[in-house]
Amino acid sequence: MHGLTSRTDSIIVQSGARTGVENVSVVGSTAAIGTVEFEPGLKRDLPDMLDRLIPPSQSYGHEQAWHDGNGHSHLKATLIGPSVTLSVSEGEMAVGTWQQLFLIELDIKPRVRELIVTVQSEKTDRDPI
Amino acid sequence: MHGLTSRTDSIIVQSGARTGVENVSVVGSTAAIGTVEFEPGLKRDLPDMLDRLIPPSQSYGHEQAWHDGNGHSHLKATLIGPSVTLSVSEGEMAVGTWQQLFLIELDIKPRVRELIVTVQSEKTDRDPI
Amino acid sequence: MHGLTSRTDSIIVQSGARTGVENVSVVGSTAAIGTVEFEPGLKRDLPDMLDRLIPPSQSYGHEQAWHDGNGHSHLKATLIGPSVTLSVSEGEMAVGTWQQLFLIELDIKPRVRELIVTVQSEKTDRDPI
Repeated sequence: MHGLTSRTDSIIVQSGARTGVENVSVVGSTAAIGTVEFEPGLKRDLPDMLDRLIPPSQSYGHEQAWHDGNGHSHLKATLIGPSVTLSVSEGEMAVGTWQQLFLIELDIKPRVRELIVTVQSEKTDRDPI
Repeated sequence: MHGLTSRTDSIIVQSGARTGVENVSVVGSTAAIGTVEFEPGLKRDLPDMLDRLIPPSQSYGHEQAWHDGNGHSHLKATLIGPSVTLSVSEGEMAVGTWQQLFLIELDIKPRVRELIVTVQSEKTDRDPI
Repeated sequence: MHGLTSRTDSIIVQSGARTGVENVSVVGSTAAIGTVEFEPGLKRDLPDMLDRLIPPSQSYGHEQAWHDGNGHSHLKATLIGPSVTLSVSEGEMAVGTWQQLFLIELDIKPRVRELIVTVQSEKTDRDPI
Protein backbone atom coordinates (compact mmCIF):
# COMPACT_ATOMS: atom_id res chain seq x y z
CA MET A 1 0.00 0.00 0.00
CA HIS A 2 1.16 3.47 -0.89
CA GLY A 3 -0.09 6.71 0.61
CA LEU A 4 -0.87 9.23 -2.11
CA THR A 5 -2.20 12.31 -0.36
CA SER A 6 1.04 14.30 -0.20
CA ARG A 7 1.58 13.76 -3.92
CA THR A 8 -1.96 14.54 -4.94
CA ASP A 9 -2.04 17.60 -2.67
CA SER A 10 1.05 18.95 -4.41
CA ILE A 11 -0.75 18.48 -7.74
CA ILE A 12 -3.69 20.49 -6.39
CA VAL A 13 -1.28 23.24 -5.31
CA GLN A 14 0.29 23.29 -8.78
CA SER A 15 -3.15 23.51 -10.37
CA GLY A 16 -4.07 26.56 -8.29
CA ALA A 17 -7.45 25.05 -7.43
CA ARG A 18 -8.97 26.15 -4.13
CA THR A 19 -12.37 24.45 -4.39
CA GLY A 20 -13.56 21.64 -6.62
CA VAL A 21 -13.09 17.90 -7.00
CA GLU A 22 -10.16 15.62 -7.63
CA ASN A 23 -10.29 12.23 -9.32
CA VAL A 24 -7.46 9.76 -8.81
CA SER A 25 -7.50 6.67 -11.03
CA VAL A 26 -5.08 3.77 -11.44
CA VAL A 27 -4.72 2.08 -14.83
CA GLY A 28 -4.92 -1.72 -14.67
CA SER A 29 -7.07 -4.54 -13.29
CA THR A 30 -5.05 -5.66 -10.26
CA ALA A 31 -4.55 -2.47 -8.26
CA ALA A 32 -7.10 -0.27 -6.51
CA ILE A 33 -7.56 3.20 -5.04
CA GLY A 34 -9.27 4.01 -1.74
CA THR A 35 -8.99 5.97 1.47
CA VAL A 36 -7.98 4.74 4.93
CA GLU A 37 -6.38 5.97 8.12
CA PHE A 38 -2.84 5.28 7.02
CA GLU A 39 -1.16 3.67 10.02
CA PRO A 40 0.80 0.40 10.38
CA GLY A 41 -2.06 -1.62 11.88
CA LEU A 42 -4.58 -0.88 9.14
CA LYS A 43 -1.89 -1.30 6.48
CA ARG A 44 -1.80 -4.94 7.56
CA ASP A 45 -5.52 -5.23 8.32
CA LEU A 46 -6.71 -4.18 4.88
CA PRO A 47 -4.78 -6.81 2.85
CA ASP A 48 -5.66 -9.37 5.54
CA MET A 49 -9.34 -8.52 5.21
CA LEU A 50 -9.17 -8.88 1.42
CA ASP A 51 -7.43 -12.25 1.77
CA ARG A 52 -10.18 -13.39 4.11
CA LEU A 53 -12.99 -12.28 1.79
CA ILE A 54 -11.30 -13.46 -1.42
CA PRO A 55 -8.81 -16.20 -0.48
CA PRO A 56 -5.77 -16.54 -2.75
CA SER A 57 -5.87 -20.28 -2.06
CA GLN A 58 -9.27 -20.73 -3.67
CA SER A 59 -9.69 -21.89 -7.27
CA TYR A 60 -10.91 -19.18 -9.67
CA GLY A 61 -12.16 -19.50 -13.23
CA HIS A 62 -9.64 -16.85 -14.24
CA GLU A 63 -6.82 -19.28 -13.56
CA GLN A 64 -8.23 -22.04 -15.71
CA ALA A 65 -7.52 -19.85 -18.71
CA TRP A 66 -4.41 -17.99 -17.61
CA HIS A 67 -2.70 -20.11 -14.93
CA ASP A 68 -1.16 -16.95 -13.53
CA GLY A 69 -2.46 -17.41 -10.00
CA ASN A 70 -3.85 -13.90 -9.67
CA GLY A 71 -7.60 -14.45 -9.98
CA HIS A 72 -8.01 -13.20 -6.42
CA SER A 73 -6.04 -10.03 -7.32
CA HIS A 74 -8.58 -9.14 -9.99
CA LEU A 75 -11.57 -9.71 -7.73
CA LYS A 76 -10.08 -7.69 -4.87
CA ALA A 77 -9.37 -4.81 -7.25
CA THR A 78 -12.95 -4.80 -8.53
CA LEU A 79 -14.26 -4.85 -4.96
CA ILE A 80 -12.24 -1.80 -3.84
CA GLY A 81 -12.44 -0.02 -7.19
CA PRO A 82 -10.05 1.72 -9.61
CA SER A 83 -10.65 5.34 -8.61
CA VAL A 84 -11.81 7.78 -5.98
CA THR A 85 -13.29 11.25 -6.49
CA LEU A 86 -13.13 13.58 -3.49
CA SER A 87 -13.77 17.22 -2.77
CA VAL A 88 -11.04 19.82 -2.87
CA SER A 89 -11.47 22.47 -0.20
CA GLU A 90 -9.10 25.32 0.71
CA GLY A 91 -6.56 24.05 -1.78
CA GLU A 92 -6.31 20.48 -0.56
CA MET A 93 -8.23 17.23 -0.65
CA ALA A 94 -10.98 17.31 1.97
CA VAL A 95 -10.05 14.30 4.10
CA GLY A 96 -9.80 13.67 7.83
CA THR A 97 -6.62 14.35 9.79
CA TRP A 98 -5.28 10.80 9.49
CA GLN A 99 -7.23 9.78 6.39
CA GLN A 100 -5.17 9.20 3.28
CA LEU A 101 -5.78 8.31 -0.29
CA PHE A 102 -3.97 5.05 -1.02
CA LEU A 103 -2.99 2.81 -3.92
CA ILE A 104 -3.04 -0.89 -3.06
CA GLU A 105 -1.06 -3.26 -5.24
CA LEU A 106 -3.03 -6.50 -5.41
CA ASP A 107 -1.09 -8.42 -8.04
CA ILE A 108 1.25 -11.23 -7.07
CA LYS A 109 4.36 -9.76 -8.64
CA PRO A 110 5.76 -6.22 -8.63
CA ARG A 111 4.14 -3.89 -11.14
CA VAL A 112 4.81 -0.36 -12.33
CA ARG A 113 1.57 1.60 -12.02
CA GLU A 114 0.24 4.58 -13.88
CA LEU A 115 -1.85 6.97 -11.80
CA ILE A 116 -3.90 9.75 -13.36
CA VAL A 117 -4.94 12.71 -11.24
CA THR A 118 -7.52 15.18 -12.53
CA VAL A 119 -8.30 18.36 -10.62
CA GLN A 120 -11.50 20.23 -11.53
CA SER A 121 -11.69 23.69 -10.05
CA GLU A 122 -14.57 26.04 -9.47
CA LYS A 123 -14.07 29.35 -11.17
CA THR A 124 -15.19 31.46 -8.23
CA ASP A 125 -13.88 31.77 -4.69
CA ARG A 126 -17.13 30.56 -3.24
CA ASP A 127 -17.28 27.44 -1.08
CA PRO A 128 -18.73 24.32 -2.68
CA ILE A 129 -22.45 24.80 -2.93
CA MET B 1 -27.72 5.29 8.25
CA HIS B 2 -28.97 8.60 6.98
CA GLY B 3 -30.79 9.20 3.70
CA LEU B 4 -29.28 12.16 1.87
CA THR B 5 -31.16 12.46 -1.39
CA SER B 6 -33.69 15.10 -0.33
CA ARG B 7 -30.88 17.30 0.98
CA THR B 8 -28.62 16.83 -2.00
CA ASP B 9 -31.53 17.37 -4.40
CA SER B 10 -32.26 20.72 -2.74
CA ILE B 11 -28.60 21.65 -3.29
CA ILE B 12 -28.97 20.79 -6.97
CA VAL B 13 -32.09 22.99 -7.15
CA GLN B 14 -30.22 25.87 -5.50
CA SER B 15 -27.34 25.44 -7.98
CA GLY B 16 -29.68 25.71 -10.95
CA ALA B 17 -28.07 22.68 -12.59
CA ARG B 18 -30.27 20.67 -14.94
CA THR B 19 -27.71 18.21 -16.31
CA GLY B 20 -24.29 17.25 -15.01
CA VAL B 21 -22.77 15.29 -12.16
CA GLU B 22 -22.87 15.53 -8.39
CA ASN B 23 -20.16 14.31 -6.02
CA VAL B 24 -21.01 13.68 -2.38
CA SER B 25 -18.06 13.03 -0.05
CA VAL B 26 -17.82 12.50 3.69
CA VAL B 27 -14.72 13.67 5.56
CA GLY B 28 -13.26 11.01 7.89
CA SER B 29 -12.14 7.38 7.93
CA THR B 30 -15.05 5.70 9.73
CA ALA B 31 -18.10 6.74 7.71
CA ALA B 32 -19.03 5.95 4.13
CA ILE B 33 -21.30 7.06 1.29
CA GLY B 34 -23.32 4.78 -0.99
CA THR B 35 -26.70 4.19 -2.55
CA VAL B 36 -29.39 1.74 -1.49
CA GLU B 37 -33.14 1.26 -1.57
CA PHE B 38 -33.79 3.09 1.67
CA GLU B 39 -36.33 0.93 3.52
CA PRO B 40 -36.30 -0.50 7.06
CA GLY B 41 -35.24 -4.01 6.05
CA LEU B 42 -32.15 -2.97 4.10
CA LYS B 43 -31.28 -0.39 6.74
CA ARG B 44 -30.74 -3.37 9.06
CA ASP B 45 -29.34 -5.69 6.37
CA LEU B 46 -26.49 -3.43 5.31
CA PRO B 47 -24.88 -3.01 8.75
CA ASP B 48 -25.49 -6.72 9.39
CA MET B 49 -23.73 -7.62 6.16
CA LEU B 50 -20.76 -5.43 7.07
CA ASP B 51 -20.58 -7.05 10.53
CA ARG B 52 -20.57 -10.46 8.89
CA LEU B 53 -17.81 -9.58 6.43
CA ILE B 54 -15.71 -7.60 8.92
CA PRO B 55 -16.61 -8.83 12.43
CA PRO B 56 -16.24 -6.28 15.24
CA SER B 57 -15.25 -9.18 17.51
CA GLN B 58 -12.14 -9.99 15.52
CA SER B 59 -8.70 -8.70 16.49
CA TYR B 60 -7.29 -6.04 14.17
CA GLY B 61 -3.78 -4.61 13.96
CA HIS B 62 -5.29 -1.15 14.25
CA GLU B 63 -6.28 -1.86 17.83
CA GLN B 64 -2.84 -2.94 18.91
CA ALA B 65 -1.72 0.65 18.45
CA TRP B 66 -4.86 2.56 19.36
CA HIS B 67 -6.97 0.32 21.63
CA ASP B 68 -10.04 2.19 20.51
CA GLY B 69 -11.93 -0.87 19.31
CA ASN B 70 -12.88 0.56 15.92
CA GLY B 71 -10.54 -1.29 13.56
CA HIS B 72 -13.59 -2.86 11.92
CA SER B 73 -15.12 0.61 11.44
CA HIS B 74 -12.14 1.71 9.36
CA LEU B 75 -12.17 -1.41 7.19
CA LYS B 76 -15.91 -1.20 6.54
CA ALA B 77 -15.55 2.45 5.53
CA THR B 78 -12.77 1.63 3.06
CA LEU B 79 -14.86 -1.19 1.60
CA ILE B 80 -17.93 1.00 0.93
CA GLY B 81 -15.93 4.12 0.11
CA PRO B 82 -15.95 7.81 1.09
CA SER B 83 -17.83 9.26 -1.87
CA VAL B 84 -20.25 8.70 -4.71
CA THR B 85 -20.47 10.59 -8.01
CA LEU B 86 -23.78 10.30 -9.86
CA SER B 87 -25.44 11.93 -12.83
CA VAL B 88 -27.74 14.89 -12.50
CA SER B 89 -30.61 14.76 -14.95
CA GLU B 90 -33.62 17.09 -15.20
CA GLY B 91 -32.47 18.96 -12.11
CA GLU B 92 -32.14 16.00 -9.78
CA MET B 93 -29.85 13.12 -9.04
CA ALA B 94 -30.53 10.32 -11.52
CA VAL B 95 -31.46 7.48 -9.17
CA GLY B 96 -34.21 4.87 -9.13
CA THR B 97 -37.58 5.53 -7.50
CA TRP B 98 -36.64 4.03 -4.14
CA GLN B 99 -32.88 4.40 -4.46
CA GLN B 100 -31.28 6.88 -2.09
CA LEU B 101 -27.87 8.24 -1.43
CA PHE B 102 -26.92 7.39 2.16
CA LEU B 103 -24.30 8.18 4.77
CA ILE B 104 -23.49 5.25 7.03
CA GLU B 105 -21.87 5.94 10.38
CA LEU B 106 -19.48 3.07 11.07
CA ASP B 107 -17.67 4.33 14.14
CA ILE B 108 -18.48 2.96 17.58
CA LYS B 109 -19.41 6.27 19.15
CA PRO B 110 -21.50 9.19 17.85
CA ARG B 111 -19.64 11.51 15.48
CA VAL B 112 -20.45 14.83 13.86
CA ARG B 113 -19.85 14.45 10.13
CA GLU B 114 -18.91 16.93 7.45
CA LEU B 115 -20.41 16.25 4.04
CA ILE B 116 -19.26 18.08 0.93
CA VAL B 117 -21.54 18.21 -2.09
CA THR B 118 -20.21 19.45 -5.43
CA VAL B 119 -22.55 19.96 -8.38
CA GLN B 120 -21.00 20.29 -11.83
CA SER B 121 -23.39 21.52 -14.46
CA GLU B 122 -23.32 21.40 -18.22
CA LYS B 123 -23.57 24.82 -19.79
CA THR B 124 -26.10 23.84 -22.40
CA ASP B 125 -29.60 22.44 -22.17
CA ARG B 126 -28.65 19.29 -24.00
CA ASP B 127 -29.03 15.89 -22.38
CA PRO B 128 -25.87 14.18 -21.18
CA ILE B 129 -23.99 13.00 -24.23
CA MET C 1 -22.32 -8.85 -16.96
CA HIS C 2 -22.00 -6.49 -19.86
CA GLY C 3 -18.81 -4.89 -21.13
CA LEU C 4 -19.30 -1.18 -21.68
CA THR C 5 -15.96 0.19 -22.79
CA SER C 6 -16.56 0.11 -26.54
CA ARG C 7 -19.83 1.98 -26.10
CA THR C 8 -18.46 4.54 -23.67
CA ASP C 9 -15.38 5.06 -25.84
CA SER C 10 -17.60 5.86 -28.81
CA ILE C 11 -19.38 8.44 -26.64
CA ILE C 12 -16.01 10.00 -25.81
CA VAL C 13 -15.18 10.13 -29.52
CA GLN C 14 -18.52 11.82 -30.26
CA SER C 15 -17.88 14.36 -27.50
CA GLY C 16 -14.51 15.32 -28.97
CA ALA C 17 -12.86 15.10 -25.56
CA ARG C 18 -9.17 14.24 -25.54
CA THR C 19 -8.42 14.67 -21.83
CA GLY C 20 -10.75 14.78 -18.84
CA VAL C 21 -12.95 12.43 -16.85
CA GLU C 22 -15.90 10.21 -17.62
CA ASN C 23 -18.60 9.18 -15.17
CA VAL C 24 -20.74 6.14 -15.92
CA SER C 25 -23.77 5.63 -13.66
CA VAL C 26 -26.57 3.08 -13.67
CA VAL C 27 -30.01 4.07 -12.43
CA GLY C 28 -31.50 1.59 -9.94
CA SER C 29 -30.68 -0.29 -6.74
CA THR C 30 -29.95 -3.79 -8.06
CA ALA C 31 -27.28 -3.24 -10.70
CA ALA C 32 -23.73 -1.97 -10.35
CA ILE C 33 -20.84 -0.53 -12.35
CA GLY C 34 -17.18 -1.49 -12.01
CA THR C 35 -14.05 -2.45 -13.92
CA VAL C 36 -12.56 -5.90 -14.44
CA GLU C 37 -10.44 -7.82 -16.90
CA PHE C 38 -13.33 -8.94 -19.05
CA GLU C 39 -12.66 -12.61 -19.78
CA PRO C 40 -14.85 -15.70 -19.35
CA GLY C 41 -13.22 -16.88 -16.11
CA LEU C 42 -13.68 -13.63 -14.21
CA LYS C 43 -17.17 -13.20 -15.66
CA ARG C 44 -18.05 -16.30 -13.63
CA ASP C 45 -15.77 -15.52 -10.68
CA LEU C 46 -17.24 -12.12 -9.90
CA PRO C 47 -20.89 -13.24 -9.49
CA ASP C 48 -19.62 -16.32 -7.61
CA MET C 49 -17.64 -14.12 -5.23
CA LEU C 50 -20.68 -11.93 -4.59
CA ASP C 51 -22.82 -15.02 -3.92
CA ARG C 52 -20.23 -16.21 -1.42
CA LEU C 53 -20.05 -12.87 0.41
CA ILE C 54 -23.80 -12.18 0.30
CA PRO C 55 -25.58 -15.55 -0.07
CA PRO C 56 -28.93 -15.47 -1.88
CA SER C 57 -30.04 -18.31 0.40
CA GLN C 58 -29.75 -16.21 3.55
CA SER C 59 -32.72 -14.42 5.10
CA TYR C 60 -32.67 -10.63 4.73
CA GLY C 61 -34.82 -8.00 6.43
CA HIS C 62 -35.64 -6.62 2.99
CA GLU C 63 -37.64 -9.73 2.21
CA GLN C 64 -39.77 -9.53 5.31
CA ALA C 65 -41.37 -6.44 3.85
CA TRP C 66 -41.25 -7.18 0.15
CA HIS C 67 -41.06 -10.98 -0.27
CA ASP C 68 -39.40 -10.47 -3.61
CA GLY C 69 -36.32 -12.55 -2.84
CA ASN C 70 -33.81 -9.98 -3.99
CA GLY C 71 -32.42 -8.65 -0.68
CA HIS C 72 -29.01 -10.02 -1.69
CA SER C 73 -29.25 -8.16 -5.02
CA HIS C 74 -29.55 -4.83 -3.22
CA LEU C 75 -26.64 -5.52 -0.89
CA LYS C 76 -24.36 -6.67 -3.71
CA ALA C 77 -25.18 -3.53 -5.68
CA THR C 78 -24.34 -1.28 -2.72
CA LEU C 79 -21.06 -3.14 -2.21
CA ILE C 80 -19.87 -2.69 -5.81
CA GLY C 81 -21.45 0.73 -6.27
CA PRO C 82 -23.65 2.49 -8.83
CA SER C 83 -21.00 4.42 -10.76
CA VAL C 84 -17.37 4.72 -11.75
CA THR C 85 -15.45 7.87 -12.68
CA LEU C 86 -12.26 7.35 -14.67
CA SER C 87 -9.76 9.48 -16.53
CA VAL C 88 -10.04 10.15 -20.22
CA SER C 89 -6.66 10.29 -21.91
CA GLU C 90 -5.89 10.59 -25.63
CA GLY C 91 -9.56 10.42 -26.45
CA GLU C 92 -10.38 7.21 -24.63
CA MET C 93 -10.96 5.92 -21.12
CA ALA C 94 -7.61 5.34 -19.44
CA VAL C 95 -7.84 1.64 -18.61
CA GLY C 96 -5.49 -1.32 -18.96
CA THR C 97 -5.32 -3.39 -22.12
CA TRP C 98 -7.80 -6.02 -20.92
CA GLN C 99 -9.57 -3.90 -18.34
CA GLN C 100 -13.17 -3.04 -19.12
CA LEU C 101 -15.91 -1.04 -17.58
CA PHE C 102 -18.83 -3.37 -16.85
CA LEU C 103 -22.46 -3.30 -15.82
CA ILE C 104 -23.47 -6.22 -13.62
CA GLU C 105 -27.13 -7.11 -13.37
CA LEU C 106 -27.74 -8.31 -9.81
CA ASP C 107 -31.51 -8.58 -9.74
CA ILE C 108 -33.23 -11.95 -9.93
CA LYS C 109 -35.28 -11.19 -13.03
CA PRO C 110 -34.38 -9.46 -16.30
CA ARG C 111 -34.39 -5.67 -16.12
CA VAL C 112 -34.01 -2.88 -18.65
CA ARG C 113 -31.28 -0.56 -17.41
CA GLU C 114 -30.66 3.12 -17.95
CA LEU C 115 -27.01 4.12 -18.11
CA ILE C 116 -25.89 7.74 -18.01
CA VAL C 117 -22.47 8.66 -19.34
CA THR C 118 -21.05 12.12 -18.68
CA VAL C 119 -17.80 13.23 -20.32
CA GLN C 120 -16.04 16.27 -18.89
CA SER C 121 -13.29 17.60 -21.09
CA GLU C 122 -10.39 19.91 -20.39
CA LYS C 123 -10.42 22.94 -22.62
CA THR C 124 -6.75 22.78 -23.50
CA ASP C 125 -4.67 20.13 -25.21
CA ARG C 126 -2.51 19.65 -22.15
CA ASP C 127 -2.31 16.29 -20.40
CA PRO C 128 -4.13 15.93 -17.09
CA ILE C 129 -2.17 17.82 -14.49
